[in-house]
Amino acid sequence: MNEELDDLRGLARTFAEKEIKPNIERFIANKEVDRELWTKAGEVGLLCLSIPEEYGGGGGTFAHEAVLIEEQARIGDSSWGASLHSGIVAHYILAYGTEEQKREWLPKLASGESVGAIAMTEPGTGSDLQSIATKAIREGDEYVVNGAKTFITNGAQADVVLVAAKTDPEESASGISLVIVPTDTPGFKRGRVLDKIGMKGQDTCELFFDDARIPAGNLLGEKEGDGFLQLMMQLPQERLIVALACVAAMEFAMDETLQYVHSRNAFGRPIFKFQNTKFELAEVATEARVNRSFIDECIELHINGELDVQTAAMAKYWCSERAMKVVDQCLQLHGGYGYMEEYPVARAFTDMRVQQIYAGTTEIMKEIISRSLPTPT
Amino acid sequence: MNEELDDLRGLARTFAEKEIKPNIERFIANKEVDRELWTKAGEVGLLCLSIPEEYGGGGGTFAHEAVLIEEQARIGDSSWGASLHSGIVAHYILAYGTEEQKREWLPKLASGESVGAIAMTEPGTGSDLQSIATKAIREGDEYVVNGAKTFITNGAQADVVLVAAKTDPEESASGISLVIVPTDTPGFKRGRVLDKIGMKGQDTCELFFDDARIPAGNLLGEKEGDGFLQLMMQLPQERLIVALACVAAMEFAMDETLQYVHSRNAFGRPIFKFQNTKFELAEVATEARVNRSFIDECIELHINGELDVQTAAMAKYWCSERAMKVVDQCLQLHGGYGYMEEYPVARAFTDMRVQQIYAGTTEIMKEIISRSLPTPT
Amino acid sequence: MNEELDDLRGLARTFAEKEIKPNIERFIANKEVDRELWTKAGEVGLLCLSIPEEYGGGGGTFAHEAVLIEEQARIGDSSWGASLHSGIVAHYILAYGTEEQKREWLPKLASGESVGAIAMTEPGTGSDLQSIATKAIREGDEYVVNGAKTFITNGAQADVVLVAAKTDPEESASGISLVIVPTDTPGFKRGRVLDKIGMKGQDTCELFFDDARIPAGNLLGEKEGDGFLQLMMQLPQERLIVALACVAAMEFAMDETLQYVHSRNAFGRPIFKFQNTKFELAEVATEARVNRSFIDECIELHINGELDVQTAAMAKYWCSERAMKVVDQCLQLHGGYGYMEEYPVARAFTDMRVQQIYAGTTEIMKEIISRSLPTPT
Amino acid sequence: MNEELDDLRGLARTFAEKEIKPNIERFIANKEVDRELWTKAGEVGLLCLSIPEEYGGGGGTFAHEAVLIEEQARIGDSSWGASLHSGIVAHYILAYGTEEQKREWLPKLASGESVGAIAMTEPGTGSDLQSIATKAIREGDEYVVNGAKTFITNGAQADVVLVAAKTDPEESASGISLVIVPTDTPGFKRGRVLDKIGMKGQDTCELFFDDARIPAGNLLGEKEGDGFLQLMMQLPQERLIVALACVAAMEFAMDETLQYVHSRNAFGRPIFKFQNTKFELAEVATEARVNRSFIDECIELHINGELDVQTAAMAKYWCSERAMKVVDQCLQLHGGYGYMEEYPVARAFTDMRVQQIYAGTTEIMKEIISRSLPTPT
Repeated sequence: MNEELDDLRGLARTFAEKEIKPNIERFIANKEVDRELWTKAGEVGLLCLSIPEEYGGGGGTFAHEAVLIEEQARIGDSSWGASLHSGIVAHYILAYGTEEQKREWLPKLASGESVGAIAMTEPGTGSDLQSIATKAIREGDEYVVNGAKTFITNGAQADVVLVAAKTDPEESASGISLVIVPTDTPGFKRGRVLDKIGMKGQDTCELFFDDARIPAGNLLGEKEGDGFLQLMMQLPQERLIVALACVAAMEFAMDETLQYVHSRNAFGRPIFKFQNTKFELAEVATEARVNRSFIDECIELHINGELDVQTAAMAKYWCSERAMKVVDQCLQLHGGYGYMEEYPVARAFTDMRVQQIYAGTTEIMKEIISRSLPTPT
Repeated sequence: MNEELDDLRGLARTFAEKEIKPNIERFIANKEVDRELWTKAGEVGLLCLSIPEEYGGGGGTFAHEAVLIEEQARIGDSSWGASLHSGIVAHYILAYGTEEQKREWLPKLASGESVGAIAMTEPGTGSDLQSIATKAIREGDEYVVNGAKTFITNGAQADVVLVAAKTDPEESASGISLVIVPTDTPGFKRGRVLDKIGMKGQDTCELFFDDARIPAGNLLGEKEGDGFLQLMMQLPQERLIVALACVAAMEFAMDETLQYVHSRNAFGRPIFKFQNTKFELAEVATEARVNRSFIDECIELHINGELDVQTAAMAKYWCSERAMKVVDQCLQLHGGYGYMEEYPVARAFTDMRVQQIYAGTTEIMKEIISRSLPTPT
Repeated sequence: MNEELDDLRGLARTFAEKEIKPNIERFIANKEVDRELWTKAGEVGLLCLSIPEEYGGGGGTFAHEAVLIEEQARIGDSSWGASLHSGIVAHYILAYGTEEQKREWLPKLASGESVGAIAMTEPGTGSDLQSIATKAIREGDEYVVNGAKTFITNGAQADVVLVAAKTDPEESASGISLVIVPTDTPGFKRGRVLDKIGMKGQDTCELFFDDARIPAGNLLGEKEGDGFLQLMMQLPQERLIVALACVAAMEFAMDETLQYVHSRNAFGRPIFKFQNTKFELAEVATEARVNRSFIDECIELHINGELDVQTAAMAKYWCSERAMKVVDQCLQLHGGYGYMEEYPVARAFTDMRVQQIYAGTTEIMKEIISRSLPTPT
Repeated sequence: MNEELDDLRGLARTFAEKEIKPNIERFIANKEVDRELWTKAGEVGLLCLSIPEEYGGGGGTFAHEAVLIEEQARIGDSSWGASLHSGIVAHYILAYGTEEQKREWLPKLASGESVGAIAMTEPGTGSDLQSIATKAIREGDEYVVNGAKTFITNGAQADVVLVAAKTDPEESASGISLVIVPTDTPGFKRGRVLDKIGMKGQDTCELFFDDARIPAGNLLGEKEGDGFLQLMMQLPQERLIVALACVAAMEFAMDETLQYVHSRNAFGRPIFKFQNTKFELAEVATEARVNRSFIDECIELHINGELDVQTAAMAKYWCSERAMKVVDQCLQLHGGYGYMEEYPVARAFTDMRVQQIYAGTTEIMKEIISRSLPTPT
């Protein structure tokens, strides 16, 4: 498999260097990537890498997704929501979708014809999924969806959105279902792209559902009320993706900073020569190394189906926290240039700050971890 | 004096609420404040508060400057470079200028007719002032200025720039002088406004000097070669201003966060009710209180002429580091909203990050502090 | 007053240098100071400095207590429980005692004839004072005291113990009273001196009360049930004492470390010359300076009767946490010698660790602080 | 191999529970373990686990050493210097000793007949090995050793000491050799056992060499001047041992703390139930998990001969720093009991503090790490 992964890495690197890196400024100015980026990626086979070939995917494992995530990080891009599209949205459909749903959506996601999003968070809800207010009420052969979602990655470009909604508003977790909402559904509306302090090329949106009617067959899975469980089952992969992106960002920031401190002088010698610089970079290198060790173990566990909820939460919490610390140190070593948006380390700083928040905040991760601690007898 | 300061605070608060707060979004979009903001402030007497009345100033002390800095922080504004204009540029002229220079520039700075800037940092120099490359060479009755400066606050709007330059390029510190460069001088050019990760409404610029000829009388002070010493003498006030802005920003972020955690619910109760929230806010409140205690002592020392270089460096280093920590905690308590630019705490996060860098980086501060540690015998 | 305080400082310094410093090793070996230390201190007038002269005290303020605390810290002593004796025990009696109680106990405490202790914590209680199980039940003209206390400073040497007990076991806070228990009371027993990781010269004990009968007149104050309130009222001073001892310990550790790094060489030059050493010491000096600023403000507030519960809790939490950090940095700069008990910085490290625990843990402090945060409307 | 390791773990656990745990208090009181502990361990085959069987060892790998280190940590013991004896001293002899030296010393070390120590640090040297002053000067068929060493683990019980000395005092690193000094050599003297703040059952000593004459054949290895290189080659294993002990100590402290917070109540409920406790323990568990991942990778690399100097330094620096943080959090969760020596977490706190110092301080580790960072071109 290693050779295959090496080939993939070569492909991904070329794609990142050629199709993404020169356009990052434009993506940021537009608050979204070029729509063609998706289809170009689909053409060369970089979407849905771990979706079976029979559904148009790459037929790989999470190791393949990991390669693309790392190569995207290596050029400092945070605009393209590919990991969400391929690693999360497509996997919900693969894991829970009916055969018909898979045949309808997965090939389009793999080719880039359709862009996918998933809508959990609501304006008043945050991490408390059980209390979502969006409803998908069955009426005859349809579900009528009403509500609002926010902080939705790929929100402006999405052609299909997996929406967490209450099919039974009387119930808490057991009333939640996921429904597939094509974005050309009447009653579906996008809000503005949100202005974030980082990840500025990513089209994070509010979404509104105003009597949006979808066929009953767009319920994800066989029966109502499975949504919460489906979310719980998929969250470890989502959190692992975040954690990996953080580790890759640390490595990227370190490389950028090594470049900087060797090429710049202060008080007559390269910045690297100061003991403080050396010690800071020793810390940075150690953090990157330790986090790499941990994330690689998590990836291996996940490929073997053994990554439990607690360990995924640890990875999400730990790697996101440490990435912020590392990037902060790297920024400081850049002096004034670290504060300038054109410097990748500056972007990394603002990009990384959200990692402790989305896909479950650090506080939620700690709750999850504490719940699985052994109770001594 | 307290009553006078209270009146000033009322004036400053009204001005901030009415003239700044509603316009922050526009300032940011334009990468500069409205030019009229300066003249409006001049009209009501908020510029040059600690410059003697005979030169058009407010006749107050640093306590007066402090009031305005705090009130600007209280509305979360970082766009208006008033503290640099009044607290730094005007004070160089007051401290070192000839009577003629004072009469020419101070009234204009106090009225807002002229906006002031100071240009120390160069593209390749950073904190190492002694090795600046910009030159101001005497030719007859003129100085000919050549070089480039960067990271210049108020750079786009400045009508007058104090430029640190080598009048004797053979010398190190003793070759440095400050010269007064009106921005209508031929050969003076502004670069683009730099895109920073925060302080986005502030017109931070590169400046270029290409055979810019100024009258010999524009040398700040009586003789060449005093520039380095002048800078050293004024830096404590500059650093105190930064430190105070940091403390005020902490207080502001805490207030914003208390509002947020009381008004928002998670899992069925106000976010404030969670022990983690309470403990985080207890930490935040303690940091704000401790920093306030320290900064108030520093301000008092400074008003009495007793703030030494070491203590000012401590204030700059400490308050900027802790402000970042506090604002980071406050951002996290906002969840996803903390990452949205429209939330003041998000802006505070990106604004604060520069405080550890400009006016002398934390590393420079530590060098300064360590140099004044007592050597035991 | 300054001259008086200077004189006192001279006296305290001489006493510390002559009577304490040469004996610290013996105090530690014995797990208690020499009993005569108390009477010697009483003779020169160093006990009960802030108790009125009419009761044998020094007639001073908390500023006087502070001088002694600082001078004790300056020689690195943590064995002598003088601040508890004078600053806490005597002040309970002064604040709440009947005239008779004051006349009986204060002169003895001031002369050192009696050593005082206060017993709050119980084996199963920790910081939760309301649920103490020790009882003092009125029977005729006596109170019968039963129960156990632990972690009692001055426990082995105490001649008189203020005991927090339930006079009404049915009640929570309102059932608590303080009673004065002379240690020659039958039924009073001392447990062993506890082996702690630091403060090894301090005789911290368990105390047991087994039908210990004391006169009804030994109730502290006028009526039963006031104990909890009395404790709440005195705790700010106790916490301020802890905070001040922490700040003084930081200053002491810094001085010791400056000595060390200037006198020791590594790789051919004084340890001080390494940038890492300089930066660490710059951090240490800044922490000491900031904490000094804060504690001095707290002391001034306290002398003016304006130190509120919240600010005292902040001082206790903050200064104890930062002292541990500072002392840890100082220890590390000593290399292997920092781990040797004979080095004062090693002792400071183990001594300081309890400061975050006793007199209310950091967690309790954060609870207190969070309760007084303003609730925005 | 796993079954073999499991058997060994069973053996080691029984030995630790039966022979060490009940005697820890005595070891500490005596400042050394019982001398018989070594021979008992030798009898059951727990010494020199990774020394080939032909020299009396266990014939295992570093994985076997790791098992014993972990089981010793699991009962909270820091008194027995077995890992130094087996994992370091014996390995110097195995790696560099002549066949005769191996045949003479390894079987005795494996049986516990001889206890081994290694003497590098000198009173004035610290981590700067190149400047050691101890000399071993060839005179005819002997080396004459003169000098002093300090901080020597197993110093009081050692029967044989590997001494780093200058065979050519004119040279720096290249003048250093290791010589084997039996402790019955005339001129060898032990100083007192040092009083440390932790690791109190370990007989850390000063050693003195006063014209101590040893046969020329006691030079470790074939020729003079190889000592520095020998030290450099063995240090990664020594640092890995320290790092592993730190990780095992974290796990031990976590287990102890989980026990405590579940069994103790505060304010009417188990301490574990407070959100602060849960979050602290979530952090602790995550740290332990991440460090375990890293150390296991390091162990695997080491067994495969691939653990480089940089990664070993990272492990030493990182695991020792994090262990201190984790143990500190665990101590705090114990409240007052965390400060009592009888509680294992209190011992762990004072034991762990030396890990950032010995076997190369954190500062030296950072130097090493920074030296191997890639230099971008």
